[in-house]
Amino acid sequence: MAARTVKLAVIPGDGIGSEVVAEGLKVLGVAAAQFDLAVDTTEYELGAKLWHRTGETLPDSVAAELREHDAIYLGAVGDPSVPSGVLERGLLLRLRFDFDHYVNLRPVRLYPGVESPLAGVGPEDIDMLVVREGTEGPYAGAGGVLRKGTPHEIATQDSVNTRFGVERVVRYAFEKAAVRPRQKLTLVHKDNVLTFAGELWQRTVKEVGAEYPQVSVDYCHVDAAAMFFVNQPGRFDVVVTDNLFGDIITDIGAAITGGIGLAASGNINPDNTFPSMFEPVHGSAPDIAGQGKADPTATVLSAATMLDHLGVPEAARRIEAAVSADLKTRAQGGAVRSTTQIGDDLAARV
Amino acid sequence: MAARTVKLAVIPGDGIGSEVVAEGLKVLGVAAAQFDLAVDTTEYELGAKLWHRTGETLPDSVAAELREHDAIYLGAVGDPSVPSGVLERGLLLRLRFDFDHYVNLRPVRLYPGVESPLAGVGPEDIDMLVVREGTEGPYAGAGGVLRKGTPHEIATQDSVNTRFGVERVVRYAFEKAAVRPRQKLTLVHKDNVLTFAGELWQRTVKEVGAEYPQVSVDYCHVDAAAMFFVNQPGRFDVVVTDNLFGDIITDIGAAITGGIGLAASGNINPDNTFPSMFEPVHGSAPDIAGQGKADPTATVLSAATMLDHLGVPEAARRIEAAVSADLKTRAQGGAVRSTTQIGDDLAARV
Ligand SMILES: CC(C)[C@H](C(=O)O)[C@@H](O)C(=O)O
Ligand SMILES: CC(C)[C@H](C(=O)O)[C@@H](O)C(=O)O
Repeated sequence: MAARTVKLAVIPGDGIGSEVVAEGLKVLGVAAAQFDLAVDTTEYELGAKLWHRTGETLPDSVAAELREHDAIYLGAVGDPSVPSGVLERGLLLRLRFDFDHYVNLRPVRLYPGVESPLAGVGPEDIDMLVVREGTEGPYAGAGGVLRKGTPHEIATQDSVNTRFGVERVVRYAFEKAAVRPRQKLTLVHKDNVLTFAGELWQRTVKEVGAEYPQVSVDYCHVDAAAMFFVNQPGRFDVVVTDNLFGDIITDIGAAITGGIGLAASGNINPDNTFPSMFEPVHGSAPDIAGQGKADPTATVLSAATMLDHLGVPEAARRIEAAVSADLKTRAQGGAVRSTTQIGDDLAARV
Repeated sequence: MAARTVKLAVIPGDGIGSEVVAEGLKVLGVAAAQFDLAVDTTEYELGAKLWHRTGETLPDSVAAELREHDAIYLGAVGDPSVPSGVLERGLLLRLRFDFDHYVNLRPVRLYPGVESPLAGVGPEDIDMLVVREGTEGPYAGAGGVLRKGTPHEIATQDSVNTRFGVERVVRYAFEKAAVRPRQKLTLVHKDNVLTFAGELWQRTVKEVGAEYPQVSVDYCHVDAAAMFFVNQPGRFDVVVTDNLFGDIITDIGAAITGGIGLAASGNINPDNTFPSMFEPVHGSAPDIAGQGKADPTATVLSAATMLDHLGVPEAARRIEAAVSADLKTRAQGGAVRSTTQIGDDLAARV
């Protein structure tokens, strides 16, 4: 019997979600077993289908059950038949907010063998960790509309930033930076324009940074950072930033490292007050759903991020090594593999 | 005598500003003269030096004088000795707001001969026009701070979007799209999260778009757009977006087209109620100031945007053709030229 059992809630979701999650679970299971960890899964049917059937995105009873798990593993949700924002806010963001996922962790690494759209850039040039705030900022949902539908209409959208919220994510980022070889942290914001929020972020980084003298601190406006991700990605090690800036720059990060098919993420509650959630950055890709064409790699890598969070880093490294080896063979060409075949190959390599 | 005289206010600014503006004026003068246009310049010393001397960023008397001009031509302002935001808000943004520059126009073109950091991408793949809103959104300066310096501090930053403000910039973008070969307009926003502002933008694009049935309309979340700028730039023709998203994606646009040294911009009041302002996207680069190392091309291209706005498109095309030819020769190698030499070469080509 395994020494420890992880209770994992699985939300396959829509489109390619169930296909990639199946492979992710396969690889996760193999890696976990090697470290005496059993994974006990419960599946939850959430997403477009449930919404069409019941109008619900996250029934309270399901939310209560999810809470009782050690972690959540999600494929992807979303379908063109559901209005923009309904599932995002009703399910994805609700989980981040309700479960206080204040760290949205997104590694940006170029794996050997993967072609970057950037000319002349290799794995040694791109290895960063973006720590995106996950529970406040412009995602707070604050704002409103006046005189809707008239020529005098006004719509506001408010970013809410608290010292509490900023400090905890900044501290998390410093902790990560402190144990990386380059020990560098870059705050990305726009403090020359967003003065109220920017000043809070700047001051907090300065104050928390005093506790980490070994970490060198840099600052970059978000517009410049977006540019540097493209023409000087090597300047970044750990990046800490707000919810919306993080959303944007991590998609650039995905683009420069070979696309969203490889980008993993963790929505993390570092205090373990609530289960954390792990998901690929990509969406449900309904156009290729059910055809075995989806690349499960991002989902598999998200399982590695999960294993790190669950305190089994050796298992996480095994998965990453398997992915790395697999991507290298892809570069050598060969037949196109199905979702399942890639999952099988990864599981065999772990 | 020239048939018409343009009264141009010139703000060389800091760092490399005066160097690049001198070349810009040189090329502008030659191009304008060919179309019977005289350029009558008045220089204004604004920027870091004035601020250090007087604490002022834009004295009221200067603002009043600027108003009396047909256009404003700016090099760059900013110096490390001035706190972040002081000159940006006190001068650059103040001009945009006071002179109602509601269109921030940024062409994103890859010129033949220029190396893009994107592998395998050529001039035919990148030719877009970003129409960024310039007078509202998160740049409104709205927001505040409560309980500053305490663990309970909260800082808000509010985006203000009006139907009036959104509609006029959207209409401008449709006008531009209607006369381009591809006749395509993409709204970039984040309506699945920023619901209040996003819905206003979406609805306005839909309603204004009904007047332009020949223009095809697309929508893209800002995170996806940031990614597509890198791995599928060809999907964009005219892009319309809010002030902050525009700030970010145009820097990506600059990056993919060879860097900020070539990126031009116009801060335009299409109603001509106030003078419009033309400036390169780059900053004052104090590290290379005074050494003749700065590339004046972005400033020269901004003069072309100015000539378009002043109703002399043939002169604008001449400048662009000169830049295009010059960039092609660069690709063939040759000695590194000084700022002045590049200006001379461009003037000779016009
Ligand atoms: C789906 C959407 C709400 C989400 C976000 O904006 O955070 C996504 O883009 C992401 O990055 O996880
Ligand atoms: C200098 C700064 C205020 C400005 C902006 O944010 O608009 C700049 O980045 C730009 O894009 O013109």
